[in-house]
Amino acid sequence: MDQERLNQLLHAVAAGKTSIEVASDLIKKLPYEDIDFAHIDHHRSLRKGFPEVIFGLGKTAPQIIGIMEKMIPQESIILVTRVDAEKAEKIVSTFTEAVYDPEAGMILLGKQKSSPDAKGGILVISAGTSDIPVAREAYLTAKAMGNSVDALYDVGVAGIHRLFAHQDLIQKAAVLIVVAGMEGALPSVVAGMVRRPVIAVPTSIGYGTNLGGLTALFAMLNSCSSNVAVVNIDNGFGAGYMAAIINRV
Amino acid sequence: MDQERLNQLLHAVAAGKTSIEVASDLIKKLPYEDIDFAHIDHHRSLRKGFPEVIFGLGKTAPQIIGIMEKMIPQESIILVTRVDAEKAEKIVSTFTEAVYDPEAGMILLGKQKSSPDAKGGILVISAGTSDIPVAREAYLTAKAMGNSVDALYDVGVAGIHRLFAHQDLIQKAAVLIVVAGMEGALPSVVAGMVRRPVIAVPTSIGYGTNLGGLTALFAMLNSCSSNVAVVNIDNGFGAGYMAAIINRV
Amino acid sequence: MDQERLNQLLHAVAAGKTSIEVASDLIKKLPYEDIDFAHIDHHRSLRKGFPEVIFGLGKTAPQIIGIMEKMIPQESIILVTRVDAEKAEKIVSTFTEAVYDPEAGMILLGKQKSSPDAKGGILVISAGTSDIPVAREAYLTAKAMGNSVDALYDVGVAGIHRLFAHQDLIQKAAVLIVVAGMEGALPSVVAGMVRRPVIAVPTSIGYGTNLGGLTALFAMLNSCSSNVAVVNIDNGFGAGYMAAIINRV
Amino acid sequence: MDQERLNQLLHAVAAGKTSIEVASDLIKKLPYEDIDFAHIDHHRSLRKGFPEVIFGLGKTAPQIIGIMEKMIPQESIILVTRVDAEKAEKIVSTFTEAVYDPEAGMILLGKQKSSPDAKGGILVISAGTSDIPVAREAYLTAKAMGNSVDALYDVGVAGIHRLFAHQDLIQKAAVLIVVAGMEGALPSVVAGMVRRPVIAVPTSIGYGTNLGGLTALFAMLNSCSSNVAVVNIDNGFGAGYMAAIINRV
Amino acid sequence: MDQERLNQLLHAVAAGKTSIEVASDLIKKLPYEDIDFAHIDHHRSLRKGFPEVIFGLGKTAPQIIGIMEKMIPQESIILVTRVDAEKAEKIVSTFTEAVYDPEAGMILLGKQKSSPDAKGGILVISAGTSDIPVAREAYLTAKAMGNSVDALYDVGVAGIHRLFAHQDLIQKAAVLIVVAGMEGALPSVVAGMVRRPVIAVPTSIGYGTNLGGLTALFAMLNSCSSNVAVVNIDNGFGAGYMAAIINRV
Amino acid sequence: MDQERLNQLLHAVAAGKTSIEVASDLIKKLPYEDIDFAHIDHHRSLRKGFPEVIFGLGKTAPQIIGIMEKMIPQESIILVTRVDAEKAEKIVSTFTEAVYDPEAGMILLGKQKSSPDAKGGILVISAGTSDIPVAREAYLTAKAMGNSVDALYDVGVAGIHRLFAHQDLIQKAAVLIVVAGMEGALPSVVAGMVRRPVIAVPTSIGYGTNLGGLTALFAMLNSCSSNVAVVNIDNGFGAGYMAAIINRV
Amino acid sequence: MDQERLNQLLHAVAAGKTSIEVASDLIKKLPYEDIDFAHIDHHRSLRKGFPEVIFGLGKTAPQIIGIMEKMIPQESIILVTRVDAEKAEKIVSTFTEAVYDPEAGMILLGKQKSSPDAKGGILVISAGTSDIPVAREAYLTAKAMGNSVDALYDVGVAGIHRLFAHQDLIQKAAVLIVVAGMEGALPSVVAGMVRRPVIAVPTSIGYGTNLGGLTALFAMLNSCSSNVAVVNIDNGFGAGYMAAIINRV
Amino acid sequence: MDQERLNQLLHAVAAGKTSIEVASDLIKKLPYEDIDFAHIDHHRSLRKGFPEVIFGLGKTAPQIIGIMEKMIPQESIILVTRVDAEKAEKIVSTFTEAVYDPEAGMILLGKQKSSPDAKGGILVISAGTSDIPVAREAYLTAKAMGNSVDALYDVGVAGIHRLFAHQDLIQKAAVLIVVAGMEGALPSVVAGMVRRPVIAVPTSIGYGTNLGGLTALFAMLNSCSSNVAVVNIDNGFGAGYMAAIINRV
Repeated sequence: MDQERLNQLLHAVAAGKTSIEVASDLIKKLPYEDIDFAHIDHHRSLRKGFPEVIFGLGKTAPQIIGIMEKMIPQESIILVTRVDAEKAEKIVSTFTEAVYDPEAGMILLGKQKSSPDAKGGILVISAGTSDIPVAREAYLTAKAMGNSVDALYDVGVAGIHRLFAHQDLIQKAAVLIVVAGMEGALPSVVAGMVRRPVIAVPTSIGYGTNLGGLTALFAMLNSCSSNVAVVNIDNGFGAGYMAAIINRV
Repeated sequence: MDQERLNQLLHAVAAGKTSIEVASDLIKKLPYEDIDFAHIDHHRSLRKGFPEVIFGLGKTAPQIIGIMEKMIPQESIILVTRVDAEKAEKIVSTFTEAVYDPEAGMILLGKQKSSPDAKGGILVISAGTSDIPVAREAYLTAKAMGNSVDALYDVGVAGIHRLFAHQDLIQKAAVLIVVAGMEGALPSVVAGMVRRPVIAVPTSIGYGTNLGGLTALFAMLNSCSSNVAVVNIDNGFGAGYMAAIINRV
Repeated sequence: MDQERLNQLLHAVAAGKTSIEVASDLIKKLPYEDIDFAHIDHHRSLRKGFPEVIFGLGKTAPQIIGIMEKMIPQESIILVTRVDAEKAEKIVSTFTEAVYDPEAGMILLGKQKSSPDAKGGILVISAGTSDIPVAREAYLTAKAMGNSVDALYDVGVAGIHRLFAHQDLIQKAAVLIVVAGMEGALPSVVAGMVRRPVIAVPTSIGYGTNLGGLTALFAMLNSCSSNVAVVNIDNGFGAGYMAAIINRV
Repeated sequence: MDQERLNQLLHAVAAGKTSIEVASDLIKKLPYEDIDFAHIDHHRSLRKGFPEVIFGLGKTAPQIIGIMEKMIPQESIILVTRVDAEKAEKIVSTFTEAVYDPEAGMILLGKQKSSPDAKGGILVISAGTSDIPVAREAYLTAKAMGNSVDALYDVGVAGIHRLFAHQDLIQKAAVLIVVAGMEGALPSVVAGMVRRPVIAVPTSIGYGTNLGGLTALFAMLNSCSSNVAVVNIDNGFGAGYMAAIINRV
Repeated sequence: MDQERLNQLLHAVAAGKTSIEVASDLIKKLPYEDIDFAHIDHHRSLRKGFPEVIFGLGKTAPQIIGIMEKMIPQESIILVTRVDAEKAEKIVSTFTEAVYDPEAGMILLGKQKSSPDAKGGILVISAGTSDIPVAREAYLTAKAMGNSVDALYDVGVAGIHRLFAHQDLIQKAAVLIVVAGMEGALPSVVAGMVRRPVIAVPTSIGYGTNLGGLTALFAMLNSCSSNVAVVNIDNGFGAGYMAAIINRV
Repeated sequence: MDQERLNQLLHAVAAGKTSIEVASDLIKKLPYEDIDFAHIDHHRSLRKGFPEVIFGLGKTAPQIIGIMEKMIPQESIILVTRVDAEKAEKIVSTFTEAVYDPEAGMILLGKQKSSPDAKGGILVISAGTSDIPVAREAYLTAKAMGNSVDALYDVGVAGIHRLFAHQDLIQKAAVLIVVAGMEGALPSVVAGMVRRPVIAVPTSIGYGTNLGGLTALFAMLNSCSSNVAVVNIDNGFGAGYMAAIINRV
Repeated sequence: MDQERLNQLLHAVAAGKTSIEVASDLIKKLPYEDIDFAHIDHHRSLRKGFPEVIFGLGKTAPQIIGIMEKMIPQESIILVTRVDAEKAEKIVSTFTEAVYDPEAGMILLGKQKSSPDAKGGILVISAGTSDIPVAREAYLTAKAMGNSVDALYDVGVAGIHRLFAHQDLIQKAAVLIVVAGMEGALPSVVAGMVRRPVIAVPTSIGYGTNLGGLTALFAMLNSCSSNVAVVNIDNGFGAGYMAAIINRV
Repeated sequence: MDQERLNQLLHAVAAGKTSIEVASDLIKKLPYEDIDFAHIDHHRSLRKGFPEVIFGLGKTAPQIIGIMEKMIPQESIILVTRVDAEKAEKIVSTFTEAVYDPEAGMILLGKQKSSPDAKGGILVISAGTSDIPVAREAYLTAKAMGNSVDALYDVGVAGIHRLFAHQDLIQKAAVLIVVAGMEGALPSVVAGMVRRPVIAVPTSIGYGTNLGGLTALFAMLNSCSSNVAVVNIDNGFGAGYMAAIINRV
């Protein structure tokens, strides 16, 4: 409700054309009403050009298939994360163009063209062999969103020369995703080497005091390097998504 | 040590010009040595164009002055964070161009020109009045790094219409920083409204189960929106820095 | 023991009719004895009109059946919560009027008539698809207690316009139950929109830093809105029960 | 601005006693009024039936005074919580009708008439002497919101007969607020005695494993009684507020 | 009011020396006496055989004095714990027979005769110098309850021979109280040496991972020895009390 | 090494009969040596009259059988705790006199005669049906150690009159064991009713914020009643053992 | 590749037996060899003096076999930890010289000659029967690294004389590894007896407040003895490795 | 009393210069000397090869002086840790040879000669400026125990080339102490570079999710490098002590 409409309303009250009850009611609703439609418009444009994701964990294959069927007419690309092989088989046999990546536990349906407004390449780095599924989820998400993505696996800090051997690849990336479990030190070290934003992903890999990934998470949030921001434990999808939208800023 | 130099060394060993001891020693050091200088070069160029920050908490005024004196010849802009009024007075009386912002508890020395590669504006949103110091630290940091920055304070989720009244400002930002204590819900709501990256900053504001900010932090990491990444509790500087480098990708 | 009986006792002591030992003994027990019967009376009337609940988790089907058999002669309605399909089958085949709701994992036996002293409608809102079982437990409990109940599922804060589209339903509810996992932000947002009491139910849905629902719980307890009170993680039954008795105040 | 004031304003407009400009200006401020460090939500009392409360902790006396000055023209009652004696003196000397309650650390300005839609009495029960400040905050809040309120202090479970001696008072309450630190057992016991809703308030009173009130909080959330919902640690205001709106359902 | 005083009162009634009104009034107050800010549980010493203790922390000197004044006519011994020197001075200058023990931070008023039903001696053992205040609180409490008590300070597990040198003292104790901070290992070792019950008291002494005493507490609860039960962190009073009543079983 | 032997040694050194090396070596070992044998003697007498317990969880049936075979010649009674039905069958078929209690998950071999030095009866009270296995473990252990034991199950605080109905049983017990999960309030209430020692046993029964029993544990450690000491979560055996040795003090 | 092999290679180059191309290629692979899912750090044994260990948990048998195949040409000894019997069978049937230790869940391939620079013996002490797998992992690791190792199992603090009976063995060890779960007290006691370094290993053995080994860990870090350092929960390999390199200092 | 002093005493006995009474008396005090508030463990330096340290925090200056007075006749070197400037002044003015190091907050009295059995140099590395006090405590302790010690401050992982520039110093150390707060990544990186044992010291430096040093601690315990063991948070003394005894193995 803009200034003009408010004045019209008050004039109508003054003129006795609008009852006090009606006016009072309109005024009580005023902070909310218009927002609704404005937001829906924006929301529609937001969706375009970005895949919708289905979090597969805890959903049955028929549930996932049901959601996908509703989405297909509206979306050009659909991602399903955290899907085990058994569920995946049922889904893939329903949608023949769908592709299952067993390492990441992801299903992709449809293909994103290379995004015209991507600024540069994204690089996914991971610390240990066991961190690869999360790293791969980030990799596939960023790729599905139209980016050029590279990956560098198993370059943890205990043998830091393995990391330095890839200086070129690291320096040329526009955005970096660094995935690590255990002590979660890798993002700090990588971020200290580059001037680009680093999205850190803690993983739940480890035992004892890794506390299901909380230790890696807390370590990353305490990074001595300022070009680091963090997503939830094992959230490869979120990191890939965040890196992709940063790459379009 | 590149391929060529390694071959030269081995030829020298084959020719008896280099002893096996010397060669063995050089080879053992090889993963590290060259990196050192390469990295220093890179590091220097990294620094240029970005302010160096001094974390003021726990340092005495003379210690801060000492560090600043060493930095002045090398840096065009210096930030000092977490400085109380008493310390600030001593520092500002030493460096007459230094300016103290009492709300943020920050000192700025030197001025960054508007960065030519900044993509768009940065918007800092905060939830409650008590979150303003952290929000202002983010604001001043992003500004010092040459960005155009806007701020929107006290627009928490309990009266969400206050937020929606600023739709235009929110939609036009290239990067958003959202600062919130208590239940930390604001970044999720804001991120649901935009397609741009949101850097979420939990604050330690609250009592009881806010657990010194951990609750806000964990809530932000669990955001239903995927365009959110998080920095440490009360880390306004880190959020401002991260937003600034995202804005240059 | 009221004033009168105490005076009688002391008179009896003064008159030598009651020995000091007997009097001393009666006085020592006095804080408890009367309470017992008073409470039993009250307790009996408390139960009437309210269903008794059996917490099914960790009990075998025969154990549940045994408890139900004892209750049937005394109760007009019986609820069993947290029952999986396998156990439910055994129970339902024993009590043919019993109905199993697989989504909520609840069994209902008997039917509550609409409660004459219910003030208005109860509305159950939930954030994500995975929160529905808990929301449904709340829904069925409030319904079984004689209330008119509506439900609004899958309206999380990441797409807040979905919530605003239901303003009318939200505004007319007498009591609201808001169920959310992840960052637990929904109750704060809803409570900011209404003047009615909101019972918030955190769920254990999520991963990483949701800490089995503790993050949602803590966020809800830190709500910026004052018309929110919280029940235990996943405790849909408790929320439904609490909403029902609030609706009769 | 409450419903009554809005109606008066509209009547004045209809009667030509208030100009449209003046009315328009007051109504425009409803959604919030921006005073540099705060967006004051004047719409709240229309939406919620009660004005915003000022959380005094961490705000300076001038900040609180500033917020109060903006609220006075719009609100008939203002509460400020968590104010120490020193700040209170400055505030009370500015607003001479304001009253400071040192035990609760609260300031009240204006007086709510007895609420016509309050259903019954509210009873505040607390466990130990040290819990009284929190209990008193709840008491004053519920009272300020137009309720008839009784209080019963220092009736912890270690001498449970002290509680039973007040059966009458307990049974006749429409809503109960139970405040306890230490092991937090009192709400469970009280809730077992009544059929009415119990709002439980854990306090930070205790040492060692009370963990700043978390133990009492968790115990209350695990209550064996279903007519209990919980607010944040030491949140007497929230409990009083919640009880008041339950009492109006 | 203890058993003896109740019998005297009833004898006085029987003998006509005390009117029924006076007696009735005294007995009615038994369950508790209301002094505005505290319900004193006079019934406790009848029910429990020992008077109430006043937890001094967080109470002002006048508050403590007020409670003591009400208790003196009814109780033969009064303990006040956690009192600092400043408060103690005010209290001791009011009650000239009261004695302050600065090491334990306790005030004792009145003297318990040696308890006729104490079975044997109680031994208090503590690990480090810093644990002595807690150990002394246990010592004084057990002594005030009429027991013969010995103490053995500074005999931690890092020099376990210091413990073994006191085998005789350790073996002859009927009940043992073992006080330890840091790793909390001492109760396990002592309990492995004796067949008697050991009350373990964790203290908050330490730094880093002692977590304010939680580590010592958890270690004691995990003791490999079965003759150990534990009280709250720093709860010397509770340990002394528990040991005293065990010694009377 | 006593005074006399030390003097002999020094005389021998003075007389040149013992070399300085030998003397130095003997003196270095002196704090430990004698203790060893003394302790073994004591240890042997400690064991007599008390059953040895085998913690069955994580041990295979053959491992348990192996340990039992070694113990049978030395012990008159053997307890095995935490044994499931499958393992129990194998064990019981090996030792035909062994008896398995499926509720407690315990095996007993041999029978303790009533202990002549037991002071009075032990009473085991438990809060909920699900707490019975732990309560029964305590019951069987105390019984196996020669005590007269009573049990009172399912008397939680939500219906506190159920507890008060058993005042006589409660008042006559010499030692009480109180078992509770959820909010862990029962031991506080019971301890407030008696003058005898209460051993509190938290159980892991519950969900959400019961945190696997930590909430009940912490609540019990914060009991307002001083005659409570606590054992580890689910440690029924430890409580039974502790109660038994208290009963012999 | 160890020092010896590198020297042989360089001698072969000097003698013209190995071409510069072949040598160059082998040396280039030193820092790591990329086998798709793992960067094997062959440089490690040069840098560290011991080959990499394979953490078997979460890797499939074929993955482990693949890594081993790449390592065999370069390393003289390979360890695989946390391997269950089923996986072990597949691996051992592939590499016939490999030996599986079922108690420790470890595979060893190749044999380290007794290390010439080992200073003395290593002693592994463990508290309970259930701690043996971790203790054995430490034992086998230290042995595989060329040390003389002794073991002393089941000597917990509840019967401390069992420990003292082995004074000679304990005193003569150059480095001690002490493994304990539950309350984790054993390392403190042992460290108090010796002047040598003690590596403490907390285990996850226990229940309730042992918190998966965190209690033992924290207790060990709070040891009153200064000659203790700690490794991660259940990290027998790390303790064995650390003890071995300490023994070579 | 160290080995040397004991031998001197026995020689004096053998030579008749010291009476048996005097010698007996001195030796009897060896296991501990009771000074009312502390059992000083004089036997320690015989058993451990180094005197007891006095933990100054929480002890008054007179208490520290009292303990030192008893130790001086028996020990050749005394350390006092965690002493602030005010206390230090009182102590240093009593013992004129005592030296106070304000950075480490330590007092040293007496001087250890260079230890003949030290194997090599010890290197102390720290990450940030704020970690220096802890690093210096480690440095001074190792030095006081007769070692050659080097220090390398402010070489955190965010600028990892600063670390690599000191390869020579790092490689030649026999034992390394690595001190770090924040994310605690430095020990992993350093340990990956060397074959020597690394003692990691987490510090409480940081804010937010560093959780008072727990994050650094947990990260270090999860180090990917196996040659790392950890001491308590801020325990510089312990690290220095451990490094010193490792250097003597």
